[in-house]
Amino acid sequence: MLAVMSPAANAQSSLTVFGVMDVAVRRTNTDHVGHMLSMASGSYTSSRYGFRGREDLGGGLSASFWLESFLSADTGAVTPAGFQRRSTLSLAHTEWGELRMGRDFTPTHSNWSRFDPFNYVGIGSVQLFSLSATGSTPVTAAFGSNGNSIQRSSNAIQYLLPRNSWGLEGGITKSFGEGNVSASDQHSSIGARLGVNLGPVFVSAASYTTHDDKTISDFKDRALAASWNAGFVRLSGGVRRYEYLRATQSNYLLAAVVPLGAHEVKFSFNRAKMGGTAGTAGTAGTTAIHGDSADQLALGYVYRLSKRTVAYATAATMRDKGNARFVIPGARAGTAGARSQGFEFGMNHEF
Amino acid sequence: MLAVMSPAANAQSSLTVFGVMDVAVRRTNTDHVGHMLSMASGSYTSSRYGFRGREDLGGGLSASFWLESFLSADTGAVTPAGFQRRSTLSLAHTEWGELRMGRDFTPTHSNWSRFDPFNYVGIGSVQLFSLSATGSTPVTAAFGSNGNSIQRSSNAIQYLLPRNSWGLEGGITKSFGEGNVSASDQHSSIGARLGVNLGPVFVSAASYTTHDDKTISDFKDRALAASWNAGFVRLSGGVRRYEYLRATQSNYLLAAVVPLGAHEVKFSFNRAKMGGTAGTAGTAGTTAIHGDSADQLALGYVYRLSKRTVAYATAATMRDKGNARFVIPGARAGTAGARSQGFEFGMNHEF
Amino acid sequence: MLAVMSPAANAQSSLTVFGVMDVAVRRTNTDHVGHMLSMASGSYTSSRYGFRGREDLGGGLSASFWLESFLSADTGAVTPAGFQRRSTLSLAHTEWGELRMGRDFTPTHSNWSRFDPFNYVGIGSVQLFSLSATGSTPVTAAFGSNGNSIQRSSNAIQYLLPRNSWGLEGGITKSFGEGNVSASDQHSSIGARLGVNLGPVFVSAASYTTHDDKTISDFKDRALAASWNAGFVRLSGGVRRYEYLRATQSNYLLAAVVPLGAHEVKFSFNRAKMGGTAGTAGTAGTTAIHGDSADQLALGYVYRLSKRTVAYATAATMRDKGNARFVIPGARAGTAGARSQGFEFGMNHEF
Repeated sequence: MLAVMSPAANAQSSLTVFGVMDVAVRRTNTDHVGHMLSMASGSYTSSRYGFRGREDLGGGLSASFWLESFLSADTGAVTPAGFQRRSTLSLAHTEWGELRMGRDFTPTHSNWSRFDPFNYVGIGSVQLFSLSATGSTPVTAAFGSNGNSIQRSSNAIQYLLPRNSWGLEGGITKSFGEGNVSASDQHSSIGARLGVNLGPVFVSAASYTTHDDKTISDFKDRALAASWNAGFVRLSGGVRRYEYLRATQSNYLLAAVVPLGAHEVKFSFNRAKMGGTAGTAGTAGTTAIHGDSADQLALGYVYRLSKRTVAYATAATMRDKGNARFVIPGARAGTAGARSQGFEFGMNHEF
Repeated sequence: MLAVMSPAANAQSSLTVFGVMDVAVRRTNTDHVGHMLSMASGSYTSSRYGFRGREDLGGGLSASFWLESFLSADTGAVTPAGFQRRSTLSLAHTEWGELRMGRDFTPTHSNWSRFDPFNYVGIGSVQLFSLSATGSTPVTAAFGSNGNSIQRSSNAIQYLLPRNSWGLEGGITKSFGEGNVSASDQHSSIGARLGVNLGPVFVSAASYTTHDDKTISDFKDRALAASWNAGFVRLSGGVRRYEYLRATQSNYLLAAVVPLGAHEVKFSFNRAKMGGTAGTAGTAGTTAIHGDSADQLALGYVYRLSKRTVAYATAATMRDKGNARFVIPGARAGTAGARSQGFEFGMNHEF
Repeated sequence: MLAVMSPAANAQSSLTVFGVMDVAVRRTNTDHVGHMLSMASGSYTSSRYGFRGREDLGGGLSASFWLESFLSADTGAVTPAGFQRRSTLSLAHTEWGELRMGRDFTPTHSNWSRFDPFNYVGIGSVQLFSLSATGSTPVTAAFGSNGNSIQRSSNAIQYLLPRNSWGLEGGITKSFGEGNVSASDQHSSIGARLGVNLGPVFVSAASYTTHDDKTISDFKDRALAASWNAGFVRLSGGVRRYEYLRATQSNYLLAAVVPLGAHEVKFSFNRAKMGGTAGTAGTAGTTAIHGDSADQLALGYVYRLSKRTVAYATAATMRDKGNARFVIPGARAGTAGARSQGFEFGMNHEF
């Protein structure tokens, strides 16, 4: 992280160059299919680079921006080009809250990823059940292979609560459809998130509804989660549910993190359970997905070499039921009811 | 803007990280077609990011570079990837002037955009009549949907006049065709610009002629404009003319800016008038475009939150005649003789 | 180069923004075909930009990263997007050496490019015989038009020797195939380099073997080179050999650099000689390439305006034999046995 006072601006202003380089060696196996050895990027936290800055406008008011890019640290690729992890411009007031415009996380993703000890990435992450285009799920039925609004929305305007003495946090998000062209990632969406900090306990709920030329009907995404910091262990759990026409998917998360000085051990259990019927993108379909489900167990170890640099290792196993075909990320594609396992160890460096 | 002395170089050297984040909420309407609500990027000045630096070589000589990228602040997209707003390397002398190589503005664009109080962007800008590929114009007849040389030229070498006591400014530009492949943005072009500062009055003229595999014949672009700073109001006006085979287009601009402390009110009237006949790219064609024209009126308001941050609002209306199909940017496509209107308000932050 | 201490880290840590802007005017000629005038990027050293940083972890250990992007300074294009010149994360120890992961140079490229006084770029460089996809060579037979492993490998893990008192340097490189999809630049490769510094004499050898879905059989790449710094002149010479099935290519280099204060004169002779038969990608083929060869002579002049900025001029001529169709970079394509010449002068600025 490079943070420098800008000579052209007043003393409260800053511009920062920042990023994460994360590389791991990964070995996965898909039963009856075979194994794969690979180098992965962003298995502890996502590799990225970006620029952010803040200008104090006086009277509690500030302007700030955040540009953050995808980055494949193992190949150097930036796909897609630009700052599509985040691109926002904000006008904020210490007491009234923040108005934020551009591309950012959805309220439900913010509500969900935060409770995953694997930071939504790598072979142990809760991400698997949300993004995979393999098989029939409400997500693939609603968006096909087009960009979806599970993680981020472009062209969005957010109002975010200021820091307050009630321990409340969250906000509302409205993204402009601009013609609602799903293929151009132009979704008309609306939703909100509300969290309450109650000492060691944190509870948060969010909802986000999307409509575009492909979904025809509304795609509904809701998440409820809680965490408890008991000192020697941090527990978290939650449920996130997708609904589209007659298809449903419920994702469950149970996780624990045990900090031990420079060491950390973490564990998570994820389950995705389908219901109803799904079709090709934009149709209700007649494919029964009721009974399709997948379970994932992950165990991780982290060693802090410094505040900015960690070494880590993760092992994970996944088991499908019914026609589910989810596999560990980086594993060879499986057939219905696939089983897959993976192990990775790597290094993560913040700058 | 982040500007830091480079420890490896002498005290006169610098490297700067800079950019603009500009986001607006825009509502447009096209008569008989419908309205559109969207988030726009760069409606006050273009969103961008880049790096620039300068090294003092002694004896009045300096080396400098400028890399500036496109940026869609509303989505984070950078299209095309790279620094295609500007990519130049310069060798300059305080008394002899500057030799600049790479991709930069054309002389006619520099001569034209400077007189537009809307900075060539947003729903009120003079840009509309230059870039639209809708309908038949000399620009579409010469370049089709390929990159054109209206705004920028790649592979160009420029000589720019130094600061001088006569108030003269400008230079000459020659871009190498490298095979003249229009689709690869490789145009063989040549032109020049000359401006005279006469106290509150500034007059400037420019010409630029382009030849490539698609234009076959020369595409001619000429601009003449003037401004008068009367203190309480800044007035500007000009004409820019495109010619290709039997097709002509004359663009007229009349504008006024009234500064009121932290506030600014601005107004512009733009007219584009076609003449002769146009065809598909590279052909003279027989489509009569004589009588096609479009008028645009724009009214803008700017409030400066600081030196680097402004809030702004713009309203604009456009009226086509004949077969012209120009519409307000971001508005739904219109038919011949379309009428469209738009309103946008946003925030612009320089860093 | 912008190097700043990061306030969030300890005093040994740093983050640097760096790059090179290099633009030249180039005139080439291909006998019986014609000439071409163009603007070129990176003829003295490659144009680029990037970020790199280092964190001291204590006890001789450090974490560091390097992100470096391609850049066409004449057009501003970055193709492909991202940091595909280099993207690495390292864990290093002053006495034990460095573990480096990501995309970086291959051992053979490191061993070869270093001995070319034209830095592997421009019309005089040794690069010509390695990358040209024109005609039949072991490289085109093995990789076709897909990305190859001549210069760089993605998904690679390297062990590099530390600085030592024996003057030894080098390391081993293993890249993960990840399915060995040649089109995705996923090659399974393994190799090593070892160099010995003997006062003014330096000798280095390297080998790298690649296997992917297109090569079917192994593509072998070996290089041996040496240099002698005699003070008033630096001499270098070497040989690099490619082998694929029945096709071979031997590249020879002889070069001299004469430093004269702020001036430098340099000369190189390159020869590529084919042997055996070659086919279309992935096949042994029956096209006899034995007897195909190309000779290249280059003469360069460099003037240092400062430590960071140089002006340069290069002249080169190339002569093909047999069915070879190599031409000076930027020259129009030639037929079998082509002759081509070129001249370029430019400016290079490091930041």
